[in-house]
Amino acid sequence: MLDAPEGAPDLAIAVLGCGTVGTQVVRLLTEHADDLGRRIGRGVRISGVLVSDLDKPRDPAVPTALLTTDASALIEGADVVVELLGGTTTARDLVLAALTSGASVVTANKALLATSGPELYAAADTAGVDLLFEAAVAGAVPVVRGVRESLAGDRVQRVLGIVNGTTNFILDEMTTGGLDFDVALTQAQDLGYAEADPTADVDGHDAAAKAAILASLAFHTRVALADVACEGIREITAADIAAARESGGVIKLLAVAERVPATADRGEAVAVRVNPVILPTAHPLAGVGGAYNAVVVEAEAAGRLMFYGAGAGGAPTASAVLGDIVSAARHRTHGGRAPAESASAALPLAGPADVVARLQIRLLVDDRPGVLAQVATVVAEHGVSIESVRQQVSDEGAAVLAVVTHEADEASLAATVEALRTADGVRRVLSAHRVERA
Amino acid sequence: MLDAPEGAPDLAIAVLGCGTVGTQVVRLLTEHADDLGRRIGRGVRISGVLVSDLDKPRDPAVPTALLTTDASALIEGADVVVELLGGTTTARDLVLAALTSGASVVTANKALLATSGPELYAAADTAGVDLLFEAAVAGAVPVVRGVRESLAGDRVQRVLGIVNGTTNFILDEMTTGGLDFDVALTQAQDLGYAEADPTADVDGHDAAAKAAILASLAFHTRVALADVACEGIREITAADIAAARESGGVIKLLAVAERVPATADRGEAVAVRVNPVILPTAHPLAGVGGAYNAVVVEAEAAGRLMFYGAGAGGAPTASAVLGDIVSAARHRTHGGRAPAESASAALPLAGPADVVARLQIRLLVDDRPGVLAQVATVVAEHGVSIESVRQQVSDEGAAVLAVVTHEADEASLAATVEALRTADGVRRVLSAHRVERA
Repeated sequence: MLDAPEGAPDLAIAVLGCGTVGTQVVRLLTEHADDLGRRIGRGVRISGVLVSDLDKPRDPAVPTALLTTDASALIEGADVVVELLGGTTTARDLVLAALTSGASVVTANKALLATSGPELYAAADTAGVDLLFEAAVAGAVPVVRGVRESLAGDRVQRVLGIVNGTTNFILDEMTTGGLDFDVALTQAQDLGYAEADPTADVDGHDAAAKAAILASLAFHTRVALADVACEGIREITAADIAAARESGGVIKLLAVAERVPATADRGEAVAVRVNPVILPTAHPLAGVGGAYNAVVVEAEAAGRLMFYGAGAGGAPTASAVLGDIVSAARHRTHGGRAPAESASAALPLAGPADVVARLQIRLLVDDRPGVLAQVATVVAEHGVSIESVRQQVSDEGAAVLAVVTHEADEASLAATVEALRTADGVRRVLSAHRVERA
Repeated sequence: MLDAPEGAPDLAIAVLGCGTVGTQVVRLLTEHADDLGRRIGRGVRISGVLVSDLDKPRDPAVPTALLTTDASALIEGADVVVELLGGTTTARDLVLAALTSGASVVTANKALLATSGPELYAAADTAGVDLLFEAAVAGAVPVVRGVRESLAGDRVQRVLGIVNGTTNFILDEMTTGGLDFDVALTQAQDLGYAEADPTADVDGHDAAAKAAILASLAFHTRVALADVACEGIREITAADIAAARESGGVIKLLAVAERVPATADRGEAVAVRVNPVILPTAHPLAGVGGAYNAVVVEAEAAGRLMFYGAGAGGAPTASAVLGDIVSAARHRTHGGRAPAESASAALPLAGPADVVARLQIRLLVDDRPGVLAQVATVVAEHGVSIESVRQQVSDEGAAVLAVVTHEADEASLAATVEALRTADGVRRVLSAHRVERA
């Protein structure tokens, strides 16, 4: 049944780290060893599990005999190294050591890829081995393989993803319960959906790391974390969400990477950002609730594809890690390797003047004749045209205007918002959010 | 930039067939040749396009110089043969000839796989080449790669798919317009969404062929078209759809393949069917409209994943074909091959007594005291329990009862429906449809 030569030793899988995901990976590797061996064409065995403390109590799925604190010895004998340590220092050193020694590497560590990606991709290329990371972007959702392989013959135009379950959960609670951000955050923390220090999630940094990875894959270019324009959800109010609902939409935190057309001055470029977006309810991402993740990929020939599933959790993340282990193990058995992350296109990053968007700007204005005309004039002066205006009377003799623009470049939109802050009759800019089409 | 040895000739891609999909494949291969060469690591060229009539007018994207009617010569020199002829006779002969000659094969032909799959998989295994068919199941939706590779380390429990755009379009029209089947079918035919002879679509045969392919992949077993229990949408009425909506659901034609647990008498089994199902609106498949396809895969560790996209059309199908061409070409350049369709598990097919479901049975009954008790008694006599009953008074002194059962095995459910047909006070069984949970 196996395709490897008779008597070939089992492939040695070294697991670095034994937290929630590591425990599940060890459990699945052990329970499904026969099935995996058949799918790979060669037997597999866990050669060891790297931990920092041998005596800590652990899940019985992890045999004590496999535990080790000797990273070097573990990596040296491994065919596939599975990095589940997290962090960017020890993890980087060990992944580099593994690649250099000729082992294939599977990782779920988005921060590592966002900070040391180019160095690690280059090391994998030099060694001619795999560096696979399906679990780093959206948990069990197989979007990395989708973009890397299924769409390898197409041209990706845009990627839009809900890639952070914590913020999606908080926005859901705000939407269904009419809660303000602080209340919903506390609730998410109480339920264990948000950490005590929620910064990485709610300020969009986690999503930004994933956006950088997705953009690099989709556009065959190198995008670093620092290249991602990033805005979180702290400023979203219950009133923003109510206003979105009134206009038939929901607010989601999206990671967006898009191809920007060539101009007279430069070739094609790529723009990458994370920010709250108003999605019409008919958009496939609008219904993605709770801790689920989903990524829409728009490609020239394929049109709009969506990948949806559990974005976190031990077992779902382990499923993605196992899929990568099988791929890496098959390559070591039958030859071949996954498409390398060659930055063949090396697209430049687009500036705000290159990217177009539609904006919903909510303004608190004096409730008197002439203010709408004044607002419309300021918008028009910046070359932006208005698609719709809705007026709601508010409590204190002032009115709230919700202005939705037609598509315009971001630089003009930003200038419009700035000018509105000091426009005659405008008391305050309440919010300014991008609006997607269905 | 290329990884093949200097001076290695370009890989020869032979395209068999030049219809809508073939034309798009030729266009994309030509337009993106440089990109594809970089992703493959070796240049590619179209060595010829097989047509039956050289003089027929064609899209200018297809260079006349590439056209040929000589299948044997075209296949003989090819590295990758792309079969887009359709049908099961000539296509079978040419695919077998290609595999035997050592070429890798990419096909979009579900009928061919459903009828000659085992023979073709075996020929590919013997030759050690790829037989790839992403486009055969759900157009651009990358579910084949998802199940074959991303979930290779997991255990699939169930696959549920909307894999026929024509029936999905018709059901949508019935739902939004309150139309009966015949009217919606005529409308779909007028718009070009359904063929003059709609049998393959509306009776579920097209979906059944896809279900057989998905089941074979998901459960590593061989499922033939004849193994798929198949019911189409001809019997669905506007009243059925209205009743589903009243209970918070929509009716969709689903292809379902599921793992059935072992019993004392036998090991695990697999059940495969195509039939109309009532989905609660919160189910991720409920919102999949128009000509879109989507497949939900439920796996032990990953949980619920969904793949969504355009299920048909020249360009989307061509995108999936191109993805497969890149995979096959990479394997010929770097070694390796896609996981083979080894029927390692060889699960038996489950019978109706093995499969559990919930049913909504709509009955036209006499509107008099005692009838509900009579119906409840008949249901209970078959060991089936009732989850809910709703009564609607109808026009002629009769009432309509909508009975939803708890989960029960299909054999008992079928016997229940039969017994209700002749039960005292029951005038007619209007419909009996499975109901999914969200």
